[in-house]
Amino acid sequence: MELFFLGTGSGVPSKERNVSSLALMLLQEVNSIWLFDCGEATQHQILHTSIKPRKINKIFITHLHGDHIFGLPGLLSSRSFQGGDDELTIYGPEGIQEYVETSLNISGTHLTYPLSFVVINEGKILEDEHFIVTCKKLEHGIPSYGFRIEEKDKPGELQVNKLKEAGIQPGPIYKEIKENEWTILEDGREIRREDFIGPNKQGRHVVILGDTRSTEKNKQFVQNADILVHEATFDKEKVKLARDYFHSTTEQAASLAKDGQVKQLILNHISSRYQEDELESLLLEARAIFPNTIIAHDFSKVTIPSK
Amino acid sequence: MELFFLGTGSGVPSKERNVSSLALMLLQEVNSIWLFDCGEATQHQILHTSIKPRKINKIFITHLHGDHIFGLPGLLSSRSFQGGDDELTIYGPEGIQEYVETSLNISGTHLTYPLSFVVINEGKILEDEHFIVTCKKLEHGIPSYGFRIEEKDKPGELQVNKLKEAGIQPGPIYKEIKENEWTILEDGREIRREDFIGPNKQGRHVVILGDTRSTEKNKQFVQNADILVHEATFDKEKVKLARDYFHSTTEQAASLAKDGQVKQLILNHISSRYQEDELESLLLEARAIFPNTIIAHDFSKVTIPSK
Repeated sequence: MELFFLGTGSGVPSKERNVSSLALMLLQEVNSIWLFDCGEATQHQILHTSIKPRKINKIFITHLHGDHIFGLPGLLSSRSFQGGDDELTIYGPEGIQEYVETSLNISGTHLTYPLSFVVINEGKILEDEHFIVTCKKLEHGIPSYGFRIEEKDKPGELQVNKLKEAGIQPGPIYKEIKENEWTILEDGREIRREDFIGPNKQGRHVVILGDTRSTEKNKQFVQNADILVHEATFDKEKVKLARDYFHSTTEQAASLAKDGQVKQLILNHISSRYQEDELESLLLEARAIFPNTIIAHDFSKVTIPSK
Repeated sequence: MELFFLGTGSGVPSKERNVSSLALMLLQEVNSIWLFDCGEATQHQILHTSIKPRKINKIFITHLHGDHIFGLPGLLSSRSFQGGDDELTIYGPEGIQEYVETSLNISGTHLTYPLSFVVINEGKILEDEHFIVTCKKLEHGIPSYGFRIEEKDKPGELQVNKLKEAGIQPGPIYKEIKENEWTILEDGREIRREDFIGPNKQGRHVVILGDTRSTEKNKQFVQNADILVHEATFDKEKVKLARDYFHSTTEQAASLAKDGQVKQLILNHISSRYQEDELESLLLEARAIFPNTIIAHDFSKVTIPSK
């Protein structure tokens, strides 16, 4: 599990930072990639990575501002052109389907794969064998959402030594013991899984917020996350500007990370007003409040290790 | 007058060639820039040039395929963000207005300048003091147009020696003589402009075709142009492929240039199947038929000198 930042700027592209897109790489876990937002030229950024568009099977849209969605029609078309045929689902606020369908219809684009849409609201929007994704409405000029991606806990490791001590030799029976609550051995013994298995492996929790003003209401949603990706459009002095434009400052992002007791904070959505040599000072503003903070750059990769 | 190629690829972007966009630089002539097509990431390409989006006041769309229009909403938004307030007009096939307006509305984008649309059909679509633009429907899977941009002829130079010989000394009277068919001098003489002016300065004619199959029907439209920009999606062997997909080969583009007796041919819209080291051979295929041919690259500039 890895976060791969494809666009980390705000509003308009610059030479240093493209508009928003972030890939959650789940290749090892489920052999797929989830994309969060898809600003213009996301497919162009992808050309400089090893990401295969056909591996992207879910796209989550935080909100409908252009710098978060204008790359969708092109990415969807190119995925088709490059021979993608697996279904793709777009999760986003009301309106995303009309935008995508109008763009594809008017441009005469026929996709080679099924495309479906899920309108998001607060609460659980997705649950499968491995993950639960929930949404939280943030404070922005238009409806904007955060996503909390929770990897489900997995059963612990089989305790081989303990099994051997009980006279159970390695073989297909081990798999059976691991997969069932009770297993009956050939000698008639009844084996309970929980007696031969280590503690559950805790799943990782990642929170990715869309554009948002700083608000107390986000605290519960980010609680104890392993990673919090938070916008930091402005430096700590620009509290009024941030409020007026429904964005956050470095300090506000850091305060939420601290209050929510997250493990690591990644600052994202950096305004192009800041030159590269000013980033260190933005970072220090956040670290003064929440030390385990980094700033995302285009093509930054952050691995989220298993627990 | 200069052609500035911003995207010269076909269908999908590659690292070498972006999807279609071409700027006709008219800064000296009318202090503005006209854009022809606007594929995704055209605004990103512009970041690497000296082009100011606010100087773009007309955008011509050849056809509605995604690789020619998906950069429009982003460019329009950024032009606004960067303080453009001059009106912008988009000329394109039926459907372009719905695409742009849906994209802007759903993304909550409010432009700071007036935006208007002109639906194009065959014939004259624009005439002002300096230019006439006419359209021709080409042969493509969806309606696709060519644009012929004709700079109007200008009156020749005042023949100063001849005026002096006639005893008319330099001064504001020269301007008057140049601007009026007849001028009455202080001494009562009536001066006819055409007796004191050189031959008309011929305007330049540029033809930019959208995606098209090779067809006899295009011959008249490109006749005697100073520059013909023609797609060459395929090499000369792929005549069937070109026909099936409504595109042209190198040789077909060159034949049209030859038949139309144009001055120079620029091959554009090159398929990403061709590597950089294969371009020389594409060029030679065309030059065998029409020697004055070049291949456009992203960021190629071609000056069209005054006559």
